[in-house]
Amino acid sequence: MGVSGASKTNGRIRVGVVGGTGYTGVELLRLLAQHPAVELATITSRGEAGTRVDSLFTSLRGRVDLSFVDPAEAQLDRCDAVFFATPHGVAMAQARSLIAAGVKIFDLAADFRLRDSAEFERWYKIPHACPELLGEAVYALPEVSRESIRGARVLAIPGCYPTSVILGLLPLLKLERGRPGSIDCEGIIADCKSGVSGAGRKAEIGLLSAEVSENFKAYGLAGHRHRPEIEQQLGAAAGRPVQLIFVPHLVPMIRGIFASIYVRLQSAAAVDLQDLYERNYRDEPFVDVLPPGGEPDTRSVRGSNMVRIAVHRPTRELALVLVVEDNLVKGAAGQAVQAMNVAFGRPETEGLGQVALTP
Amino acid sequence: MGVSGASKTNGRIRVGVVGGTGYTGVELLRLLAQHPAVELATITSRGEAGTRVDSLFTSLRGRVDLSFVDPAEAQLDRCDAVFFATPHGVAMAQARSLIAAGVKIFDLAADFRLRDSAEFERWYKIPHACPELLGEAVYALPEVSRESIRGARVLAIPGCYPTSVILGLLPLLKLERGRPGSIDCEGIIADCKSGVSGAGRKAEIGLLSAEVSENFKAYGLAGHRHRPEIEQQLGAAAGRPVQLIFVPHLVPMIRGIFASIYVRLQSAAAVDLQDLYERNYRDEPFVDVLPPGGEPDTRSVRGSNMVRIAVHRPTRELALVLVVEDNLVKGAAGQAVQAMNVAFGRPETEGLGQVALTP
Amino acid sequence: MGVSGASKTNGRIRVGVVGGTGYTGVELLRLLAQHPAVELATITSRGEAGTRVDSLFTSLRGRVDLSFVDPAEAQLDRCDAVFFATPHGVAMAQARSLIAAGVKIFDLAADFRLRDSAEFERWYKIPHACPELLGEAVYALPEVSRESIRGARVLAIPGCYPTSVILGLLPLLKLERGRPGSIDCEGIIADCKSGVSGAGRKAEIGLLSAEVSENFKAYGLAGHRHRPEIEQQLGAAAGRPVQLIFVPHLVPMIRGIFASIYVRLQSAAAVDLQDLYERNYRDEPFVDVLPPGGEPDTRSVRGSNMVRIAVHRPTRELALVLVVEDNLVKGAAGQAVQAMNVAFGRPETEGLGQVALTP
Amino acid sequence: MGVSGASKTNGRIRVGVVGGTGYTGVELLRLLAQHPAVELATITSRGEAGTRVDSLFTSLRGRVDLSFVDPAEAQLDRCDAVFFATPHGVAMAQARSLIAAGVKIFDLAADFRLRDSAEFERWYKIPHACPELLGEAVYALPEVSRESIRGARVLAIPGCYPTSVILGLLPLLKLERGRPGSIDCEGIIADCKSGVSGAGRKAEIGLLSAEVSENFKAYGLAGHRHRPEIEQQLGAAAGRPVQLIFVPHLVPMIRGIFASIYVRLQSAAAVDLQDLYERNYRDEPFVDVLPPGGEPDTRSVRGSNMVRIAVHRPTRELALVLVVEDNLVKGAAGQAVQAMNVAFGRPETEGLGQVALTP
Repeated sequence: MGVSGASKTNGRIRVGVVGGTGYTGVELLRLLAQHPAVELATITSRGEAGTRVDSLFTSLRGRVDLSFVDPAEAQLDRCDAVFFATPHGVAMAQARSLIAAGVKIFDLAADFRLRDSAEFERWYKIPHACPELLGEAVYALPEVSRESIRGARVLAIPGCYPTSVILGLLPLLKLERGRPGSIDCEGIIADCKSGVSGAGRKAEIGLLSAEVSENFKAYGLAGHRHRPEIEQQLGAAAGRPVQLIFVPHLVPMIRGIFASIYVRLQSAAAVDLQDLYERNYRDEPFVDVLPPGGEPDTRSVRGSNMVRIAVHRPTRELALVLVVEDNLVKGAAGQAVQAMNVAFGRPETEGLGQVALTP
Repeated sequence: MGVSGASKTNGRIRVGVVGGTGYTGVELLRLLAQHPAVELATITSRGEAGTRVDSLFTSLRGRVDLSFVDPAEAQLDRCDAVFFATPHGVAMAQARSLIAAGVKIFDLAADFRLRDSAEFERWYKIPHACPELLGEAVYALPEVSRESIRGARVLAIPGCYPTSVILGLLPLLKLERGRPGSIDCEGIIADCKSGVSGAGRKAEIGLLSAEVSENFKAYGLAGHRHRPEIEQQLGAAAGRPVQLIFVPHLVPMIRGIFASIYVRLQSAAAVDLQDLYERNYRDEPFVDVLPPGGEPDTRSVRGSNMVRIAVHRPTRELALVLVVEDNLVKGAAGQAVQAMNVAFGRPETEGLGQVALTP
Repeated sequence: MGVSGASKTNGRIRVGVVGGTGYTGVELLRLLAQHPAVELATITSRGEAGTRVDSLFTSLRGRVDLSFVDPAEAQLDRCDAVFFATPHGVAMAQARSLIAAGVKIFDLAADFRLRDSAEFERWYKIPHACPELLGEAVYALPEVSRESIRGARVLAIPGCYPTSVILGLLPLLKLERGRPGSIDCEGIIADCKSGVSGAGRKAEIGLLSAEVSENFKAYGLAGHRHRPEIEQQLGAAAGRPVQLIFVPHLVPMIRGIFASIYVRLQSAAAVDLQDLYERNYRDEPFVDVLPPGGEPDTRSVRGSNMVRIAVHRPTRELALVLVVEDNLVKGAAGQAVQAMNVAFGRPETEGLGQVALTP
Repeated sequence: MGVSGASKTNGRIRVGVVGGTGYTGVELLRLLAQHPAVELATITSRGEAGTRVDSLFTSLRGRVDLSFVDPAEAQLDRCDAVFFATPHGVAMAQARSLIAAGVKIFDLAADFRLRDSAEFERWYKIPHACPELLGEAVYALPEVSRESIRGARVLAIPGCYPTSVILGLLPLLKLERGRPGSIDCEGIIADCKSGVSGAGRKAEIGLLSAEVSENFKAYGLAGHRHRPEIEQQLGAAAGRPVQLIFVPHLVPMIRGIFASIYVRLQSAAAVDLQDLYERNYRDEPFVDVLPPGGEPDTRSVRGSNMVRIAVHRPTRELALVLVVEDNLVKGAAGQAVQAMNVAFGRPETEGLGQVALTP
């Protein structure tokens, strides 16, 4: 592998995208097409090989002059970075050979998010193809693991729900780590609401417009795959196990995650939470703590890489943290680009200056 | 077949539904469950045999106490009326035997809409299974063919677009029939807009919420199957061939058809169109001609069997007819129930008194 | 006042509606127009006096043949029942004289919901006009106070959020009443989500389509007027004070309330909650407890008077109760009609047989 | 006035925005905040003077560090360019003094769109404040009047409907100009559909979410103010009067215009329209002619300055031109920035590289 930040070609980062036909894929293409330091080298799709990218996504006409290529012919090993916008199981199958070729891997699926291959296999029902890489894989949430990302070869990009919940809880968890007994780590409630693009571009009855529009529902009540990933990260931040009640709901809108997080305060009841959050995130370019009383809305981050957070205190012993993000940007493609910037020594905000689309 | 209006059982119409798992199907069930003269006897579905209807459609809990049965075991011949809420090709396969058993058939698909089996085969790419029935099949738009419906055994329920366009043009076409040269029958433009439920409950990418929401598009520009059906009916009403420019568009909403119809006036330029339309539809319970200057909206008919029409004159030589209907009610299930009422000698509005849901 | 159930005219209930220009008003008209035992006598509106009702609401063309009349000329005292679909403060101003004339009052606003006039004045910032009537006013949630409704003259119709939260908690609160210590009455969390029609038909920037669509947010975090009303009822049911964390959110859809209620179980951890809920609501025509594992959605009640409830147990010590209702029906107009049926000795479900509109 | 392209300060264009509280205003701010050659100097609002811009529009937090100032204190004459995102009547009141100070004016309202002050007064019901400037004002549609924009001081930015219809017809009109008799200039039909943001951020009942969602309607049938503006431009391009049938419809979505334009072909029936359109727009950076058979959708331009056009031929004598644009970008703020780039000698695409947001 070349030195971090070096490119195989011309000073720009040579990027390949595997599986660019889903919503995460087209969002990655939108961001990469506008990134000044990226050369978009190749996009693979087994099903759409030979199809022009811009015939599938008209929005990319004039901006992405590529056709999908069959994975077998993609020469991904000539890239500096390969993004996997695929179902789980794909990235791990190619990880060893790409790493050997000096390619950094950014997996937007779950292959490298759980540290424990047994845990992975329990939730995803397939054996892990390269458990030996789990140790070096970095859970690439820059606000948590910026330093580790710099040298990483395998980067697990956090999913949309985990990003919102972890960033919403991080200041409290760090407080708990420093002063055990600050909060009640049992039964933190994350009542989360997501737009429908979070479910992906899949031909399923439940995702049809006539099913989703004018409707609101909870789902995944029997257990959602994101919970172990979140609990793992929360526990790491808190320095002890955290039990999360995670209830996802589906909102009739395309983009956006809204997390309403309820935390019982113990000794932290005496802490100025507004100040705690502001201090924690003062230097973060993509985390915005709203002023006291703030009521964030998802459209304030639509199409942008920002997370916005408001902290409330319904009672003295209860914190209510409200978090909004765009699930396809900070919850997926934007986070991956942010991690790429860090990993290649670029300015962290490069190519991520989009202002949210309002209205 | 029994005498029109008689029932095989108890004075109520014994109804079977074939293919009750789509949007037209669940809408039929909604209406039939509230119809005082209907006994809902059986519902078939190959894919969902054994499943309770109300587990698929929670809205029917407490209202429809049936499970889907396999078509082979449905004993449809013991019904008075069988509704086919199926793809084309299903009704025609069972038509002969059901008719022989004295059952009236209400086909909500296209099997019996075109008079000419060659035309059917050209558009639907399959041979017609019972061309000998096309002669007696009635195109069951009560406002046009009420008398024929009374004695019919095979009823072709008009689709959503045809209903809106035919009712929107009928007064002008009857004028043309009586006084040739009233309107220009070449190049009538029907710029139609439909909610997404018109496309059915099919797992297709193009119907996903994240594709349809916040988006507007035209489709079917290469030729839509509804055009020959509409032209056939328009020609019959006008007494000579009518050429229709039919451009369907998809609206990001669930229910509703809005047809904007442009007709060049010839001698009809001297006619009071408002008066013409009001006189034509004065006695129709489900056609409402708005006052002059009316601006109909689709929600004014949502969930109801009403069609509302407004007539405008942008210039002296041009009529603009605006038509709204609920594609699942007057454009499908409601129309079928209305035809059933007529065919069985019931009051035409029975079970169809739903007031539109606003907002 | 006449004997309960008697009518001033012809055996039908003679109904007046005050303030029929909002969403609650038009929904009342939709239901009353279909009610077989109701004669809709008069509708008032100061701003729209003289306007035909069906010119404001096209959906009512052919169904409501009335014009709005000025309140001063409405002769409401000749009605059997008067519904107030008005802002708070209107019903209380007319209550004394109407009651004296033998009219039953159904107030869909807040004038008679709180037992304590000081509490009313604290939240609504106006003095109460007839505090002496607060004692006899009945909080008209039939599932809780059916017997009191029968003889009542002043009926406070519960709002949309309170209905969902109270019905969602009722079985647990009755358990607590019988066996103190069953649940933790401190800090019950109601994370509620409402469609936008709940905010009414008011010309406010925050309710514009371009503000609400494709957006999700929390609101009212500084304190929502529904909380004291809910806590009052919860406390009455539990037999001791209940502290509620009530967090309302706005969903980009027209109709529907979804309440996610989190309750910490104490001795109730040993109780079969599914069985508890099923037994409690077995005979209720408008409360449907879903089978174990149920995932209710708001569209399953859209346009109907049903409430559907599912009970989950994320952990042994936590109950998660999910409740859906149509805020304009069971959360407002339908509930008022249900209470009217009870108050006048009619079958409780009369005129309320609408099946939910799906899709 | 300084030489075109010069700045009053530091090489960047010093920009003032008048009336930045509407949707056009916030969209301007989004684009200007990302424009590398712009210094956003001041934003005025009478109603919001003193309010931070980013407290009104959370999306701009961290991007626009300004508060609204009272127009009287704004020192607009120290700007190079002033954008008026105001109702009509505001720009013309300040035009003379700003021009005298060397400021270029970009009016996004109608004050300078019509050449004839009498025509202006007929449609807008107020006298024109500076009719002497109408002669030099440029209708700033760069694809039509690029050269005139370069030296202009008063730039009338075309509205959303006009942009779509003019660009959709331009190649045919230029053909007509060169070869009279190519098309029928009487009765061109523009059946247009717009998202709700086109109506602005106004507190009106008709724009409420509960009114607009799940609804489709026509409006403005008695005459829309955009028609004379469009006809004026169409006539100028065709070299003779053009009569337009313009029927706007409201789509339940936030952004997007879709124009379905029907043109009767005369001698142009022999022309290859696809080739005609491709040749006309070959060098235009913001007009994209889709391949034959193309079906544009509004989301393919959402948030971007692109217009996409498809040309169809339903019959030999009829052209159907389909046009999509984002009404707030190419139909308002983006077009204004594009005109600014041209007027100040900047690269025309500078700051306008946003890729459409899909999904």
